[in-house]
Amino acid sequence: MGTHNPTQFQRRIAGIFHRVKQVPKLDLSRPEREELAHAIMQLVDEHLGALDSRRSGGLSEAASFERARALSVPINDEPIEGGLSKIQEILRQGIEASLPTTGAGYLAYVPGGGLVASAFADLFSDTVNRFTGLASAAPLFCRLEADVLAWLAAEFGYGQDARGLLTSGGSMANFNAVVTARSTKLSEQTDLRTVTVYTSSQVHHSVERSVTLAGIPRSGVRTVPVDADMKLNPVALEEMIRADQAAGRLPFLVLASAGTTNTGAIDPLIDISDVCRRLDLWLHVDGAYGGAFVLSAEGKRRLAGIERADSIVFDPHKGMFLPYGTGCLLVRDGRHLRDAHRESAEYLEDFKHGDDQRIPSPTEYGPELSRDFRGLRIWLPLMLHGAQQFRDALAEKLALAEELWEGARRLQDGGRDLEVCGPPQLSTVAFRHPRRPGESTEETDRRNTVLLDHINRSGRVFLSTTRLPTPEGSLLTLRACILSFRTHAREVAALLELLGGLGPSPDHPTERS
Amino acid sequence: MGTHNPTQFQRRIAGIFHRVKQVPKLDLSRPEREELAHAIMQLVDEHLGALDSRRSGGLSEAASFERARALSVPINDEPIEGGLSKIQEILRQGIEASLPTTGAGYLAYVPGGGLVASAFADLFSDTVNRFTGLASAAPLFCRLEADVLAWLAAEFGYGQDARGLLTSGGSMANFNAVVTARSTKLSEQTDLRTVTVYTSSQVHHSVERSVTLAGIPRSGVRTVPVDADMKLNPVALEEMIRADQAAGRLPFLVLASAGTTNTGAIDPLIDISDVCRRLDLWLHVDGAYGGAFVLSAEGKRRLAGIERADSIVFDPHKGMFLPYGTGCLLVRDGRHLRDAHRESAEYLEDFKHGDDQRIPSPTEYGPELSRDFRGLRIWLPLMLHGAQQFRDALAEKLALAEELWEGARRLQDGGRDLEVCGPPQLSTVAFRHPRRPGESTEETDRRNTVLLDHINRSGRVFLSTTRLPTPEGSLLTLRACILSFRTHAREVAALLELLGGLGPSPDHPTERS
Repeated sequence: MGTHNPTQFQRRIAGIFHRVKQVPKLDLSRPEREELAHAIMQLVDEHLGALDSRRSGGLSEAASFERARALSVPINDEPIEGGLSKIQEILRQGIEASLPTTGAGYLAYVPGGGLVASAFADLFSDTVNRFTGLASAAPLFCRLEADVLAWLAAEFGYGQDARGLLTSGGSMANFNAVVTARSTKLSEQTDLRTVTVYTSSQVHHSVERSVTLAGIPRSGVRTVPVDADMKLNPVALEEMIRADQAAGRLPFLVLASAGTTNTGAIDPLIDISDVCRRLDLWLHVDGAYGGAFVLSAEGKRRLAGIERADSIVFDPHKGMFLPYGTGCLLVRDGRHLRDAHRESAEYLEDFKHGDDQRIPSPTEYGPELSRDFRGLRIWLPLMLHGAQQFRDALAEKLALAEELWEGARRLQDGGRDLEVCGPPQLSTVAFRHPRRPGESTEETDRRNTVLLDHINRSGRVFLSTTRLPTPEGSLLTLRACILSFRTHAREVAALLELLGGLGPSPDHPTERS
Repeated sequence: MGTHNPTQFQRRIAGIFHRVKQVPKLDLSRPEREELAHAIMQLVDEHLGALDSRRSGGLSEAASFERARALSVPINDEPIEGGLSKIQEILRQGIEASLPTTGAGYLAYVPGGGLVASAFADLFSDTVNRFTGLASAAPLFCRLEADVLAWLAAEFGYGQDARGLLTSGGSMANFNAVVTARSTKLSEQTDLRTVTVYTSSQVHHSVERSVTLAGIPRSGVRTVPVDADMKLNPVALEEMIRADQAAGRLPFLVLASAGTTNTGAIDPLIDISDVCRRLDLWLHVDGAYGGAFVLSAEGKRRLAGIERADSIVFDPHKGMFLPYGTGCLLVRDGRHLRDAHRESAEYLEDFKHGDDQRIPSPTEYGPELSRDFRGLRIWLPLMLHGAQQFRDALAEKLALAEELWEGARRLQDGGRDLEVCGPPQLSTVAFRHPRRPGESTEETDRRNTVLLDHINRSGRVFLSTTRLPTPEGSLLTLRACILSFRTHAREVAALLELLGGLGPSPDHPTERS
């Protein structure tokens, strides 16, 4: 089929070059690449080095917005004036002008951390930029991801038929779970206005959001009452499902929580799964925050029954300490996940014969085609550290939360102006100044805002708040969520010390500060 | 509020340490981090250094699957045996055992490339792990992302009211577009079984998939005929919409294409938008592959009318050469995007007052909450290279595709056994061995499979196939999609040389090889 003719080949290149006029340069030479690597590694080193001296803190919100205004630069046809040093300055300021999420003292929202090994995994994946949507395109890389998913499924107590999907985060993982439940339990011709879904007031709002994204109206979402520990009441659940069935509705999905964002509450999974099996509903468990605790023996005990769920979501970028960008969906019978998502396309023709090689292709288990190689950012830290370090770290978080709760309870019992919510079901401890007799809830909330500010300005720990239901109405409540791999005893002791400095409760006459 | 008491503090830490027993170590010391950085940078250097000598190629699929079997290692409680060297070996093999997506000769599917600057942006983002869901949590970083989105919206011809969202890829961006159209044009109580959506046979299957994900049955998706250039026929579109309306259906959305994956066909956007305005439908344009060409003057001319779309998707990980993991949705009237996605949650209470600072929060424009900081992987290359390099690179791709098409046409006219499809509308050239008189389409397909294999085994360029409709039925067709920032004249010349070596067409009596 023809022979190589160098002269003609050179002529042809010359002709094309002539037409193209200039060859744009987006590739970096090796020295340019080294310069960039050096600049970024310098920032990384500075940041990680400073973590030990600065446990939390950073600029105030107003100052942060001011920096954002001052440092935004226009996007021009030319490179940025000042080059890499200017880029470094902006990024350095960006770190300062933001919540200190990576600090050991960061106990706000749900901390993750950002394992450094994952960051280097991404550097590798981005540079080699393999297509990991289909096993045939990158069998070994897809195999490493499948290995991670199979290992996780087993840790959660699932059997060999389970399959999983790594997503960009918990919201997308929960959405894929709802789509899988919809595809398994309903026909495409079901009137989605007649279906009902059950969740509790404590389930993460993104879970309800994933239901409406899937085309189910908000009016089909039922809120099941919770008990004093913020756990979904399974008796009420069953009653509500039966009432809906009697009214001609089509209940098909229960969304339970294995560790709520608010307080870490774990719904009674075994009782709920009994209800679901009896009434033929899909049980999905959102463990975005709490699920990873199954990796520790104590966490596995507390999450007993999670393996009875039809699907589970957990966020490796929370409980496995990864940088933001990785959620995980596991489905007990993987065929349901595959049936919900598998598609075919003409231009993927060349891949068909690779299907039987038994490495699952992510595109057959989820809606994404071109996707970042998410498996490596879990695989590399597991290989580097070993799974035991993750188990121990999670056990440590549970122990630290108990320590914090007991310490805070002692302070409350000793007369400090503190009301500590129930014992931590996972690694979150919630507390507040209690409402004083005759005080408006607004005034109580205001005092708790002052308390939050006092704690956060200490620079030692950084908390956030939520609103929790009480018999007197919802009250602003502080929460310490202990989940960063960098958080240890020092931070718990610091928070207890801050709480120990609080004034006495006005209705505790025996105590004076 | 209390004073620091070091002795009590130390005692408290000691007590907690006693209980926690051991402090797990997931953080890396500086030397450990340097060792890891060195190991990964070595792989990156090797990979990028080898790109120039190896334009395409890699292991065969069977050999790749064999490597996957051989190199998968169990996930254990202990770190991997062999440590970083073993990890390096596995990753090195993973690069070999996969499609050579980063090579200059990779013209298969839709190439991206993997800008090295983006890889270092991710290394930074992962390590500092800022929460960029809400502007208040990281104002400067969110501002950089908003700057990128505003700049892109302007490049597409949108006005000040436009808003955008960076997603994990085109599939998720298209899905968010459908959700926005649904939320804008329909009520939550609309029976989704009665609505209809219009697309062409050439639109990417993920676009249809995004419709069914949103709860609209497949039976509501209408396939509008295409013309010989694979463009959607706007007259047929209008007839189909009117017929559906007359039959009591609720047409609400047209999904047009600005550069199909198959051939790069651009639907007649102005005519389609006229139909949509006349009949009050949402016009979404999927430019996942082709949209980025608006950055070049010639591309902007070819995509004229795209600014009339209600929403546009394009993939920075394709046309802006980023590593996989970034799609982009732009919505002309950003309020619709915000209304479709904005939610509230109790534990975000602390953020409320930050809302008015005029930096859009990604979580208010999309379904994700915790998310990776996608903005930086576009911002950093733009700052480092300047936008002009992107414009030039895209103009070069268009010119290279024309050069390839003209060269292939000359070969066809000169009697080679080639049938070259219509002139490239963007940077994709499709061709095949034509069907011989009396030959079955299966036999023609078989000969084209041999041709693909011949080209790909050359190690100089790497193509993929698709199926295209012809009057004789659908035929396997080779396609060269020129989109990598590393592809230049040399690769086009190499492909033309390979095609020039083909035998003569049997029905071209004047030509003998």
